[in-house]
Amino acid sequence: MRIAIDAMGGDHAPQAQVESVLAAAAEWPDVHLVLVGDPDAIRPYLGSGIPDNVSIEPASEVIGSDDEPVRAVRRKADSSMVVAGRMVKEGRADAMISCGNTGALMATGLLVVGRMQGIERPGLAAIFPTLDNKGLLALDMGANMDAKPEHLLQYALMGSMYRSKVHGIAKPRVGLLNVGTEAAKGNEVTKAAYALLENAPVHFVGNVEARDVLEGVCDVIICDGFSGNILLKAIEGAAQSIFKLLREELTSSFVSKLAAGALKPSFRRVRTRMDYNEYNGAPLLGINGLVVKGHGSSNASAMKTAIRQTRTAISNKLIASLADEFSGK
Amino acid sequence: MRIAIDAMGGDHAPQAQVESVLAAAAEWPDVHLVLVGDPDAIRPYLGSGIPDNVSIEPASEVIGSDDEPVRAVRRKADSSMVVAGRMVKEGRADAMISCGNTGALMATGLLVVGRMQGIERPGLAAIFPTLDNKGLLALDMGANMDAKPEHLLQYALMGSMYRSKVHGIAKPRVGLLNVGTEAAKGNEVTKAAYALLENAPVHFVGNVEARDVLEGVCDVIICDGFSGNILLKAIEGAAQSIFKLLREELTSSFVSKLAAGALKPSFRRVRTRMDYNEYNGAPLLGINGLVVKGHGSSNASAMKTAIRQTRTAISNKLIASLADEFSGK
Repeated sequence: MRIAIDAMGGDHAPQAQVESVLAAAAEWPDVHLVLVGDPDAIRPYLGSGIPDNVSIEPASEVIGSDDEPVRAVRRKADSSMVVAGRMVKEGRADAMISCGNTGALMATGLLVVGRMQGIERPGLAAIFPTLDNKGLLALDMGANMDAKPEHLLQYALMGSMYRSKVHGIAKPRVGLLNVGTEAAKGNEVTKAAYALLENAPVHFVGNVEARDVLEGVCDVIICDGFSGNILLKAIEGAAQSIFKLLREELTSSFVSKLAAGALKPSFRRVRTRMDYNEYNGAPLLGINGLVVKGHGSSNASAMKTAIRQTRTAISNKLIASLADEFSGK
Repeated sequence: MRIAIDAMGGDHAPQAQVESVLAAAAEWPDVHLVLVGDPDAIRPYLGSGIPDNVSIEPASEVIGSDDEPVRAVRRKADSSMVVAGRMVKEGRADAMISCGNTGALMATGLLVVGRMQGIERPGLAAIFPTLDNKGLLALDMGANMDAKPEHLLQYALMGSMYRSKVHGIAKPRVGLLNVGTEAAKGNEVTKAAYALLENAPVHFVGNVEARDVLEGVCDVIICDGFSGNILLKAIEGAAQSIFKLLREELTSSFVSKLAAGALKPSFRRVRTRMDYNEYNGAPLLGINGLVVKGHGSSNASAMKTAIRQTRTAISNKLIASLADEFSGK
């Protein structure tokens, strides 16, 4: 199998991308990894000998984090992200991974790789850390701002299949993000989606409130792109604020500094468990090929996690299974 | 001025309610506080002598947290919440405060007290703790699930006036909860609301992302009731999960237990700063009278905070100012 890596996208590109590719190439000889980007920027991190299962695909342009997504994808035809997308489209790669501009990656998925037949709107997934350490697949995180109930149903089917094919969960529990657990709660979209999900071939466990998302009450959570983005960023922001307050408080006196020093490993473990990098690699589902988003701040270890997940998805024929499910619908 | 207190609503009712009323009556002799509820349940906490500026208004029923809101308000005409609402409606109280069933309180506002002229949909506000300790007024937190852009505009006007009248902020900064800061971001509702807010007589500071809500970037944040509920509960849930993880980690070894013991006051301060009770008293805005929601888990000190804010709102003629603003529109 071949995985195209956008070597130029992300805060630590291309170093983190190249280092993770070298580590992944050594661990998984069955995977051929293609670093897509500027060869001169990539080579310094490759060291002396390039492994047999690593290659470079030249791309002269880079899509920046401030670029307007659709325009960037249309105009920068030789950017690392678009070239990687084209490799997937043309069958020269089984998947692509990028830590670059999220909007541009969605546009690459739609405009370069193409929408999967039978899917109305692709959904961007994220994997949330949960207290039971099993993680939670949440979608849509912002690909589709004004979702219809039918879109939420398709997210449920796709998310469920992803959890089963990639994470080996036999009967993934699907929850609907809502303002209360009762069936009648919510806005017009969630009320209609609830009725569809009750009759869908997924293990629907009902409405899930935002405060229970991290508690491990379901394996997949479904929402429109607007609410999903609010959910994701509210959790990130709350975690950031709490750690900021803790740092302030714990360095405020000599005694607290001393005690906090002894607790450093504990704090680090908590941060790690809340860290999205540990669950890196969120798929854009509903695309006619595997397009995976890595966190913008991914380091080499986070990137390797994304490569591992992508490898599992390819081995288990995720895209073919999704195409089977949705073709003819 | 007279404030009606629903003595029977909330996790610590009627004890927290009675204790806070006694403390408030001693501190603010200009306020007459009416405890609404079952006299036999209230009296044991009143002690020997009842102050001159405290009285009891008997109510024989209680609306529970599991009661269906609209039905409960219609059927339980002699419940403490409905009786308090009727006192506001009839001018026998200038405001009411309840820590009971949120949905029922919204129904009491609409059905018993009544909607303010010119307001299409009332909005439930909440006060978020922020890193700069100034707090943030956020609305709507769930009164109106399918908000229109015009509703968001009214929330902005009402929230802005609340911050200026009750919290003394001269020119409150109003933000629109959205998925990105650029004007073109968001769903159909926020895009249309953005255009309305740009031309409104408020100090509009643009879109605000969920991750920045606690950073103190604005004084009022506006959103539809669905997203607002997701935002509020996501932050609550994230805080809860982080403190749960910290507790687990910090009690995992003898050394960490010892060090954590020394840091207890620091942890307590952080929890307090993240605690919604410190900013208790969220108004239901757009009602023809002052209806204030206290957190369900309010203790006596949190209830007293709610009474203080309500007193300020009455002194500064919040309701009359809102009525002036919206009548004739």
